[in-house]
Amino acid sequence: MRSVDFPEPVKLLVGELKRLPGIGPRSAERIAVWLLQSPKATPLLLADSLSVAKNMVRPCSTCGFFATESGCDVCDDPSRDDRILCVVEQATDVLPLERSGAFRGRYHCLGGKLSPLDRVSPEDLRIQPLIRRIESATEEIEVILALGSDVEGEATANYLAAILRGRSCRLSRIAQGLPAGGGLEHADGLTLLRAMQGRRSL
Amino acid sequence: MRSVDFPEPVKLLVGELKRLPGIGPRSAERIAVWLLQSPKATPLLLADSLSVAKNMVRPCSTCGFFATESGCDVCDDPSRDDRILCVVEQATDVLPLERSGAFRGRYHCLGGKLSPLDRVSPEDLRIQPLIRRIESATEEIEVILALGSDVEGEATANYLAAILRGRSCRLSRIAQGLPAGGGLEHADGLTLLRAMQGRRSL
Repeated sequence: MRSVDFPEPVKLLVGELKRLPGIGPRSAERIAVWLLQSPKATPLLLADSLSVAKNMVRPCSTCGFFATESGCDVCDDPSRDDRILCVVEQATDVLPLERSGAFRGRYHCLGGKLSPLDRVSPEDLRIQPLIRRIESATEEIEVILALGSDVEGEATANYLAAILRGRSCRLSRIAQGLPAGGGLEHADGLTLLRAMQGRRSL
Repeated sequence: MRSVDFPEPVKLLVGELKRLPGIGPRSAERIAVWLLQSPKATPLLLADSLSVAKNMVRPCSTCGFFATESGCDVCDDPSRDDRILCVVEQATDVLPLERSGAFRGRYHCLGGKLSPLDRVSPEDLRIQPLIRRIESATEEIEVILALGSDVEGEATANYLAAILRGRSCRLSRIAQGLPAGGGLEHADGLTLLRAMQGRRSL
C-alpha cells in the first residue's frame, strides 16, 4: 500500500507557512487547508499582495521606516520638527508612537537592538547613519532614545548614549514607570524601582 | 502634519494575512513586517507556493481528499481494500488515520459536519456522492463513521446512520473512550461514561 500524504504543492505551501514567525507545523497545515478549501479564502490575492509588497516596499534610506517609490511618509512631511530625532528599534515602533500623538519630529529606526546572544552587534544596526544625520544637522537637535526597557534595549541605549555624548546633540530617553491605568499592585518590583527613581517634583 | 501609516502595499498584505484562521491583527502585522524585512524571509516563494497549490490541487472527485492532475493517492492505489469505506469530516482527517496505520480501505471526506449554527445542512456535505458510492459497490461494504465526538460530529453520525441503515452496507463507528496513555484521573465524565458504555468483554 502506498503511503498517503498531501500532494507535493500542498507540502511546499505548508513548508513556507511554517517558516512564518509564530506559525507552528499544525497551524501551517490548518492555514494551508483553509486557503485551498474554504470558499472565503483568497490565496491568489494573498500571493499577489506578497509580491506587490515585496517589490514595492523598501526601507527609507534616511529614517529606515517603510517607504515606496513615492517616498517616505515621515521624511517627506515638511511640517515635522527637524530639531527632534526619535531613535527606535524597529520600523514598526513608529506606528504606536504616531498613534499616541506624543511626537511630531523625525524618526530613526536602528533595525534592531544590541544582542550578543542573537549575534547583533553595533555594525548590524543603523548607528553610523544616525551619527551622520546628527552631525549634518544645521542646528543642535534633541535625540530621544525610545528603546525598549528589556535588557537588550537598555544595552542599546547605554551604547548609544556613550557614543553620542559629546556630539552636537542633547540626549534624552523616554521615561520608565507605571503603565497608564495600572495600579501599584500589578507592577513588578523593577517597574516600581524605575518609577520611584524617575519621580518628578510637583 | 500628515498621519503616518504603513504604505498601501503593506496594509493590503496585512489585510490578507489577517483573514487567515488563527491570525489576529497584531500577528498579521508582525508576519508582514517579518516577510518584508527579515533576511530569512522568502515572500516570493510563499507567493509562488500559494499560486501553484491553488492552481494544481483539487479535491478528488471520488473521495474528496487532495488530488492533483496526476490523481489521488488514496483512490488510485489498487492495493487498498474496496470493501471498507471510512467516512471522515475533513480531507485533513485522512492523514492522522493513515499515520496511525489503523486502516487500509478507502476514504470518503464529507467536507464538514452538520452544524445548524454555522448553517451547514446535509446538502452542504458530500452525502449524496457517499450514497452513490455505496449503492454502486459490487459487493456489500462496511462503512465506518470516523467522525468527531463533539456535538456536531455526533449529529452527523446519527444523521448518516439513519439514512444509510437499510442500504447494502454494514455500519460501524469508531470507538470513544480513554485516549491512549491517559489515566482515569485526567478523563472527563462524558469520556468515562462513553468508555464504560463501550466496554468489551475479555
